[in-house]
Amino acid sequence: MSGHLSVVGLGPGDARWRTPEAEAALARAEVLYGYAGYLERVPTQLGQARHASDNREEAARAEASLRAAAAGRQVAIVTGGDPGVFAIANAVCEQIEAGPESFRQVEVTIIPGVSAMLAVAARVGAPLGGDFCAISLSDNLKPWELIEQRLAAAAGVGFVIALYNPISRKRPWQLGAALDALRRSLPADTPVVFGRAVGRSDESVAVKRLDAAEPTGADMATLVIVGSSHTRTIARPGRAPLVYTPRVVEKVSA
Amino acid sequence: MSGHLSVVGLGPGDARWRTPEAEAALARAEVLYGYAGYLERVPTQLGQARHASDNREEAARAEASLRAAAAGRQVAIVTGGDPGVFAIANAVCEQIEAGPESFRQVEVTIIPGVSAMLAVAARVGAPLGGDFCAISLSDNLKPWELIEQRLAAAAGVGFVIALYNPISRKRPWQLGAALDALRRSLPADTPVVFGRAVGRSDESVAVKRLDAAEPTGADMATLVIVGSSHTRTIARPGRAPLVYTPRVVEKVSA
Repeated sequence: MSGHLSVVGLGPGDARWRTPEAEAALARAEVLYGYAGYLERVPTQLGQARHASDNREEAARAEASLRAAAAGRQVAIVTGGDPGVFAIANAVCEQIEAGPESFRQVEVTIIPGVSAMLAVAARVGAPLGGDFCAISLSDNLKPWELIEQRLAAAAGVGFVIALYNPISRKRPWQLGAALDALRRSLPADTPVVFGRAVGRSDESVAVKRLDAAEPTGADMATLVIVGSSHTRTIARPGRAPLVYTPRVVEKVSA
Repeated sequence: MSGHLSVVGLGPGDARWRTPEAEAALARAEVLYGYAGYLERVPTQLGQARHASDNREEAARAEASLRAAAAGRQVAIVTGGDPGVFAIANAVCEQIEAGPESFRQVEVTIIPGVSAMLAVAARVGAPLGGDFCAISLSDNLKPWELIEQRLAAAAGVGFVIALYNPISRKRPWQLGAALDALRRSLPADTPVVFGRAVGRSDESVAVKRLDAAEPTGADMATLVIVGSSHTRTIARPGRAPLVYTPRVVEKVSA
């Protein structure tokens, strides 16, 4: 009997941003694995086993899902957003490379989803409209010096910057340090978007100028987008301002 | 009567990657605007007007959709992938900023979608797993020198690089020049993924080494992902190799 592992991106927030391919994979699975906060978003289904685990236990969760699939089960491992953007697909690949031969024989399908930066950008306009980059501010898996190098390089050549994992209880200072670093090379009025829990009932979105952007505006559920020197804000009477990056760039100002 | 404009990301390929929110906006629209190639993917609906236009007429299409919404119609303007990634949401924002006051009064909803780089990445594993950037190789709207600066900066600090708009009949040499530039700073065996028409019936995906990557592998429907020096390939007996970027980075090798 041949098992199968679906690595499913749920998208951000509720089911309105979840693809039909993701829904089909969830319905087909005999066993579900995931961080408890993501599994909660999946409707329970009779006869389907669910293994919830802590957010930090990615390697163990990926391994367990591969073991179940190698044993012949129909398995889904779920993640918010897209599985390939700072999420579980990488942990699954790492386990396949490091694990027993049977892991390489598992049929794996990775199901893309709407990543948080796309949802946050859509809420305010089109800030990612030019060239852009995505950087995780977690220094659990890479040195902080490298993160600072990447921030400086990105701002220097005019990338819009999406910041994933901006802050947590164990990493309280990194977002402040990143904003300080960006203030050294970007204009004071560069728009900074804080999108929290976008697509959920407790969603909040705020747009600040870089010189007034404070890390206190963010938590683990927040995605931050820092504009380039070309990113603009359009005031609209009676509506939230639009934030966007024009497509035409004459030259780099940095 | 108050009009409304939905800027709808269809995702790549067919409806399996289209969100329920996108489907709902399409069903509700009285008038649809879009590049003909994207409109073809939307089922026709009785009584719904459709205005197809050429891929290069983005500004005119965005303006027409805003005029219709300002006149009180329920309008959707569609794009492949995500509307905020090298797509129509920016043209809409540009027209709102440059256009008459009535454009600022239009209620605009931007509906995110699965962007091409996420779908291509999912097909091969998790190449975007580390920090990454997205660069359009079109030099219609920005100088080629800036594109080369961005490529060099991105490779230099270890970003994985997604290349949008890699090649067209009018821009035949840019992808070759970009690959040549990247060969100067990245290892010869860096994986390069060519994903063409992903999610469509004529989909094709190829993984090459950077030293063997040729621009002839790409056309307008192709999305190219160039790994970092950390991106790895896992051979699997009887299956396509997996390409992924590990989450742990010790230091930048460039």
